[in-house]
This record gives sequence, structure tokens and C-alpha cells, in this order.
Amino acid sequence: MKITHIEHLGIAVNSIEEALPYYENVLGFKCYNIETVEDQKVRTAFLKVGGTKIELLEATGPESAVAKFIESRGQGVHHVAFAVEDGVAGALAEAEGKGVRLIDKSPRKGAEGLNIAFLHPKSTQGVLTELCEPQK
Amino acid sequence: MKITHIEHLGIAVNSIEEALPYYENVLGFKCYNIETVEDQKVRTAFLKVGGTKIELLEATGPESAVAKFIESRGQGVHHVAFAVEDGVAGALAEAEGKGVRLIDKSPRKGAEGLNIAFLHPKSTQGVLTELCEPQK
Repeated sequence: MKITHIEHLGIAVNSIEEALPYYENVLGFKCYNIETVEDQKVRTAFLKVGGTKIELLEATGPESAVAKFIESRGQGVHHVAFAVEDGVAGALAEAEGKGVRLIDKSPRKGAEGLNIAFLHPKSTQGVLTELCEPQK
Repeated sequence: MKITHIEHLGIAVNSIEEALPYYENVLGFKCYNIETVEDQKVRTAFLKVGGTKIELLEATGPESAVAKFIESRGQGVHHVAFAVEDGVAGALAEAEGKGVRLIDKSPRKGAEGLNIAFLHPKSTQGVLTELCEPQK
């Protein structure tokens, strides 16, 4: 697979409204979009940082994976997303062929309408890892 | 403060030797340097990813902060480092003035000889945050 850059860092927060003042007023980033991804039960806020992004993740219900993450580990970095230039499906096949356990066997739609898929943290030294189509 | 980009992601691993095959052979990054930071009791391996870096962190002893992190949370993302263009000391003063709790009251030398300082995760929604002088 050909990874070009870190597409975004997903950060689990209790509340986007409570977290944004730190990111905007202290670090000086600008939130350019807030959207809800219904099937993931998350609300996401995007901020640009150089060539990558921070995606703040807020659970929309107690059964959200983000709510469970915060319950067990507290707020913090939830996942790292890498942009793959040559397609998510091929990257998944390659990773699986090299012994990596997959969460998603095939790409699905994530925030911002991009094709994404997750590798299992058991195969990635504890880092929940997303492979992501680069934004056009 | 003027943050230009994510300088690196610090990832706590049990063993650099065990983690590198995933980063090099699956993700396709290249480790360009391994060094020990004695006063932090860590061994670090650096890999470039687009305009940022991944820094794998391995404890050199049980009293290392990285060993304690892994003991309580397991392997995973340990910190996020932002490059500040206009100086770490000024950025610290600004953050403190805006109510952010600091771990380092003044810059100190980190890996690769750069001036660095950490903000306290209590003030940053659980993300251990490093401010870092950009590499020349």
C-alpha cells in the first residue's frame, strides 16, 4: 500500500462544545465542519492542522464505540487515520495477506463521505488504525 | 502561538524491534533513526509519514513514564506533538495565560535535540500534548 500522510487523528471527547475552545483559542486551529455519522453514533468536528486534520469525536448515545472507549480509557486519542493513495480495498487485502487482523473486511463510508476501513489494534500494537481514501 | 503542523505522534510500544515490522513492512514507512533519551528513560525510533513523523517509544526501565503508561493503558498513542513556529517558551506562556496547566514550565531538550515542553492532559481533554520547536 502507498500511504501518503496522516489523514487525521481521531480524538474522543466528552463534548465537542467543551473541547473546541482549547483547540481554537489555545492551539489556534479552526473548526471548519461539524457533522453526525449516524451509523457510527458519533458527532465529529474537523479542524485542519498543516497537511492533516484533527477529528473530535463525541458519542451520540451510550452504545456508541466512542462512549465505550471513554468509559474504559477516558478521553484521548481514539484512532490514527492514514491516507492510502492506491485504494483502501487493495490496502486491506495487502494488510490481511501480511497477517494483520482487520475490523472491516471491505471499505465503508466514513465522515466526509470517504472510503475507510479499520485495522484491529491487536495487530497494530494497540493503535486503532484507519486506512482512508485521500480527500479529492 | 503559531502551530504549523503535527511534528510527530508518540506511540508507546513494548518493543521497538517487535513494532517495526508492522510500520515498515505493512504500512511501508522507513525508520531513519533510533536513539535513547537517557533522562526520559526511553528508546525512540523515528519514521517519516508525509510531513509528520511517528516516534515509537520503548521504556528503558520500569520507572520510565512510558512503562507506567503501558502498565495502566496498554500500548498505544502516548502523545501528540505540535510544531510551534514562534518559539516554545512563548507558546507555554500563552497557554498558561489561557488557563492551561503545564507539565513543563519552560522548554527542555527532547529527542533529536529539539526544544520541547508538555501541556498537562487534564487541560487538553486527555491528550498528552507536546509543543515542539520545528526541525531545521
